[in-house]
Amino acid sequence: MTTARRAGIDVGGTKCLGVVLSPDGDVVAEHRLPTPKGPEAIIDTLAEVAAALAPFDTIGVGVPGLVTRDGVLAAAPNLVDITHFRVGELLSARLGMQVEVDNDATCAAVTEWKVGAARGYDDFAMVTLGTGIGGGVVAGGRLVRGVNGFCGEMGHMVVHPDGPACPCGRRGCWERYASGNGLGRLAREAAVARRLTRVVEIAGGDPEQVRGEHVQAAAREGDDQALEVIDTFGRWVALGLVNLTNLLDPALFVLGGGLAAAGDIYLEPIKGWFNELLYSPHLRPHPKVVFAELGERAGAVGAALLADVH
Amino acid sequence: MTTARRAGIDVGGTKCLGVVLSPDGDVVAEHRLPTPKGPEAIIDTLAEVAAALAPFDTIGVGVPGLVTRDGVLAAAPNLVDITHFRVGELLSARLGMQVEVDNDATCAAVTEWKVGAARGYDDFAMVTLGTGIGGGVVAGGRLVRGVNGFCGEMGHMVVHPDGPACPCGRRGCWERYASGNGLGRLAREAAVARRLTRVVEIAGGDPEQVRGEHVQAAAREGDDQALEVIDTFGRWVALGLVNLTNLLDPALFVLGGGLAAAGDIYLEPIKGWFNELLYSPHLRPHPKVVFAELGERAGAVGAALLADVH
Repeated sequence: MTTARRAGIDVGGTKCLGVVLSPDGDVVAEHRLPTPKGPEAIIDTLAEVAAALAPFDTIGVGVPGLVTRDGVLAAAPNLVDITHFRVGELLSARLGMQVEVDNDATCAAVTEWKVGAARGYDDFAMVTLGTGIGGGVVAGGRLVRGVNGFCGEMGHMVVHPDGPACPCGRRGCWERYASGNGLGRLAREAAVARRLTRVVEIAGGDPEQVRGEHVQAAAREGDDQALEVIDTFGRWVALGLVNLTNLLDPALFVLGGGLAAAGDIYLEPIKGWFNELLYSPHLRPHPKVVFAELGERAGAVGAALLADVH
Repeated sequence: MTTARRAGIDVGGTKCLGVVLSPDGDVVAEHRLPTPKGPEAIIDTLAEVAAALAPFDTIGVGVPGLVTRDGVLAAAPNLVDITHFRVGELLSARLGMQVEVDNDATCAAVTEWKVGAARGYDDFAMVTLGTGIGGGVVAGGRLVRGVNGFCGEMGHMVVHPDGPACPCGRRGCWERYASGNGLGRLAREAAVARRLTRVVEIAGGDPEQVRGEHVQAAAREGDDQALEVIDTFGRWVALGLVNLTNLLDPALFVLGGGLAAAGDIYLEPIKGWFNELLYSPHLRPHPKVVFAELGERAGAVGAALLADVH
């Protein structure tokens, strides 16, 4: 526990969301602005959000991509043309104070660990199922950062070497299957093969327009074809979670990101396939699988908490 | 540094190898016996090896499979019919002293970390390329154990969901491709397709008899067809290392196991494919890839060092 007011800002693809936490960890202020294009404009926006959040004693920023331990955004596939962006140094110079910077999914992991679904756990993995897949790892009671700070890029784990092309330039990355985009792709494949009558209807009649939310809507009506896509999707999510379990043996997975909001329809398929795909499933405890407790503020709250875990 | 004499025993598929380390970490005694079948016979053999190694102040044991933090071998695919084998408790009762137990590849990781190729590293992964693939992870200067103690089962990471069946019951596990057995399988496929003239010759004329060592021998002669198999194999090794890099961001990989002895012919293909398969390879430092410094004693030495890291 601290007596400080801690500020955090999450830089998303469309908006920069800032919060201030009270000493108890409650959000006591919030401010958001659209995310502009280009590094200088982003620094301006961050400074503007920070000014709106003042006063605060510490500040952290979460950004999407590979973030070094020195607060440099080395590569950011979702922020066009940004490489080697010295976020920490530039914002620190502007604000006249230390700025902690880390990956946005790592920030979400910190949030769930400190004030969310993973409170009290020493070994867990956060997996954000959004446009892509990001994540963070806590092992032995400590945030795993990696030598460069790049730990947790689990979305680019290759799970099928001949799989679909990924924007990262490789093929068959986990996020091609198990993200929100992955669900949409699986659904469109089924729709084009005329196996998703009700889903296509909900999507307005064009199989190419089918997206994850249409599958979810049909699944909630009990549509068998939609439930089959959800099951296939759950298998891909489970496959990646099994890989992480074999490697890290966590007590808990916290699933976050956009899909977590409708998590209940995915949970049983994921658990069922997890049991099918795990090695020696009957001879070992299985990790719990739960959904994130904090929604869109997870990144900003985690950014505010970075000073406690770095 | 310690003043104690530390004993360690590695339970392999064919032999139990015990060592005693001097306070400086040198092997000052060694004893080996064949690995018998069945848990009781294994405890008898471990007690016999321990008696031959006496006197010692601490003792650890490395076993293949899933080892709990309490020293129970939960599952051991390579030791027939052994599940829930309370190695630590049973041997401790027999010897009248505390016995540390961990997975054999984890022991090898400890060895390389404390007295081998990973000395001084805080973030590295050990990958043992033997009959299968095992491993161990050190992150932020600490051995990652996992909530149950099962961290490092990276051989069962699924890298191709439609791949060949694995003895673990799943399909397309990394060790189906990137282990010694995996190399043999890749080579036999090529041999049966009549693409490995010289290798088949070295193997005695029967494509079905081709094994990894025959490919290595032909590759050393500069045989192009053999080098092509080595390249394919290097791609599979690299794919798994890339997955581990995305997830953990280590500074170093130490490759051990049987294949490490001929490591030089694999290193360039592995590094080349690593660069092809890693996301944003030009925007980030790459982990070093080196081979283990300790050979067949790695497991036993690591078992002796367990007391220092548990």
